[in-house]
Amino acid sequence: MRLATRSNDTRDGELVVVSKDGKSCMPAGLIAPTLQQALDTWDEAAPALQGLANGLDSGELEGEPLDVSTLRSPLPRAYEWIDGSAYINHIVLVRKARGAEPPETLETDPLVYQGGSGIFLDPTGDIPLPNVEWGCDFEAEICVILGDTPRGVSAADAGKYIKLITICNDVTFRNLIPAELKKNFGFFQSKPATAFAPFAVTPDELGDAWQEGRVHLPLLSHLNGEKAGDPDAGPAMHFSFFDLIAHITKTRAFTAGTILGSGTVSNEDESKGVSCLAERRMREILKDGKPTTEFLKPGDAVRIELKDASGRSICGVIDQKVAPA
Amino acid sequence: MRLATRSNDTRDGELVVVSKDGKSCMPAGLIAPTLQQALDTWDEAAPALQGLANGLDSGELEGEPLDVSTLRSPLPRAYEWIDGSAYINHIVLVRKARGAEPPETLETDPLVYQGGSGIFLDPTGDIPLPNVEWGCDFEAEICVILGDTPRGVSAADAGKYIKLITICNDVTFRNLIPAELKKNFGFFQSKPATAFAPFAVTPDELGDAWQEGRVHLPLLSHLNGEKAGDPDAGPAMHFSFFDLIAHITKTRAFTAGTILGSGTVSNEDESKGVSCLAERRMREILKDGKPTTEFLKPGDAVRIELKDASGRSICGVIDQKVAPA
Repeated sequence: MRLATRSNDTRDGELVVVSKDGKSCMPAGLIAPTLQQALDTWDEAAPALQGLANGLDSGELEGEPLDVSTLRSPLPRAYEWIDGSAYINHIVLVRKARGAEPPETLETDPLVYQGGSGIFLDPTGDIPLPNVEWGCDFEAEICVILGDTPRGVSAADAGKYIKLITICNDVTFRNLIPAELKKNFGFFQSKPATAFAPFAVTPDELGDAWQEGRVHLPLLSHLNGEKAGDPDAGPAMHFSFFDLIAHITKTRAFTAGTILGSGTVSNEDESKGVSCLAERRMREILKDGKPTTEFLKPGDAVRIELKDASGRSICGVIDQKVAPA
Repeated sequence: MRLATRSNDTRDGELVVVSKDGKSCMPAGLIAPTLQQALDTWDEAAPALQGLANGLDSGELEGEPLDVSTLRSPLPRAYEWIDGSAYINHIVLVRKARGAEPPETLETDPLVYQGGSGIFLDPTGDIPLPNVEWGCDFEAEICVILGDTPRGVSAADAGKYIKLITICNDVTFRNLIPAELKKNFGFFQSKPATAFAPFAVTPDELGDAWQEGRVHLPLLSHLNGEKAGDPDAGPAMHFSFFDLIAHITKTRAFTAGTILGSGTVSNEDESKGVSCLAERRMREILKDGKPTTEFLKPGDAVRIELKDASGRSICGVIDQKVAPA
């Protein structure tokens, strides 16, 4: 099933179930008024929500027309947003761009950072950019949303804690990173609010493309109507979501509704393009000695989506415009 | 007024108003069932909660007996937990202990890290310790809880976004830090769940001790019944909470209920003792070439509190025992 959060007069919006064709939806307030509450009570809520989805798809239930522009990030705010960096090609390229070495433990110890999770951007809203000098970039990623997850989960046991899958644009201010990382406390100012796709879907919606904690589909990004890249999110993901869950649960447990990201999807094959501008700039530097691609400026349009083999947009489209702030 | 969260059968507990003498309380469910909901509607909720507090203190309202052992962290989970490191003496000592240099911008650019906020420990519960080799340490800190806070707040304007003040034990696994920071993505596994004090109080509860974004009172820590330290949290706080708010709002806004920490309270004056064991160990190394204090082990008891000049415990007592996990 596919779940979404429709804007209403509350901070956390209204949970709706979305039909297979994405054209209609059904408010799920009697089961759970918000997606967080559905995740808090998932074992009871999920079958009931699936019932609504089935009724909607069979025509037994008459849905309401779905206006994607009214949708917010599935969790407009979350208790944790943890972002991995599981595509090694991205780490290598981006560190080269900063003149930094990849960590020695690149292939054995996952990179994750704790992101801000109190305010997320809407999937079809603006990316506020207070200062173009900050080097605004998009980062297209796969994400999973966890149910209650205890400490000490093994990778082999991690699959059952993944309740939903979606995609995100992890907006980054590249030019704020070097000074920030020099202080050795990780990212903070360099990571403004993230946007998630309109729909969060149960793993079965991906069919065979969901395998051992990886999404075996291309993640498609466009910048101003031109394809930026469509790298395969599957084999190049060095640490699977199962590995990432084992990593993050080493020392603590997580509440339902914790979001875990893959990091920027990246393939070594240059013909697959990029999921962020920093990689394209690094490739330009390696070829021509200097970057020609500029970071985002007001008016630029970023579009990110994940399609299945039949061309259906699984999570809906992240379709944002950069705006002065 | 003083607010607390009493354990009930929900994830986020029940908001109660606490009497001046700390002996009784009044459930605030008709105003806001949880502290998060009170913060989400603060402009309306705060005066109504203050009314309850007044009624309780005047004897007009009859409260219920308060059993501190039933209290959870004021926000059992929060949308963001951002921890500064505003006491420069702590940074210098702890980096010395790791053989690392303090950052060049030590006195001009605040250090903050994004902490995990999905599960907090209870103020009088256990500190779970899965592995003594991880080097478990306590860190006694002052915290503020913010209302809705926009992007781009100046230090001069920051005071009005601080709704509540409390203290915390930011538990740290010291021996996991070096490998983690070497990867340059900040803390993750080295920061397990944090515990907060039983009460979160409005700034007026501190009287003159709350001045320009600093708490001018000693923060008292005990380990196994012996005083570990009582450094003054005021003048040594190089960056005030107002400065920290200006720093964190540079690139994004924050939802109501965001918690912001001061970092480990630390004075240069050695007679004031310490608010964490890493500092004591570093002082031992500087004196004797090696540390004699061990990190926490199961059975150790940590007690942290903030008293006003009359000896009243402002936020109640963090009183935890380390337990195997």
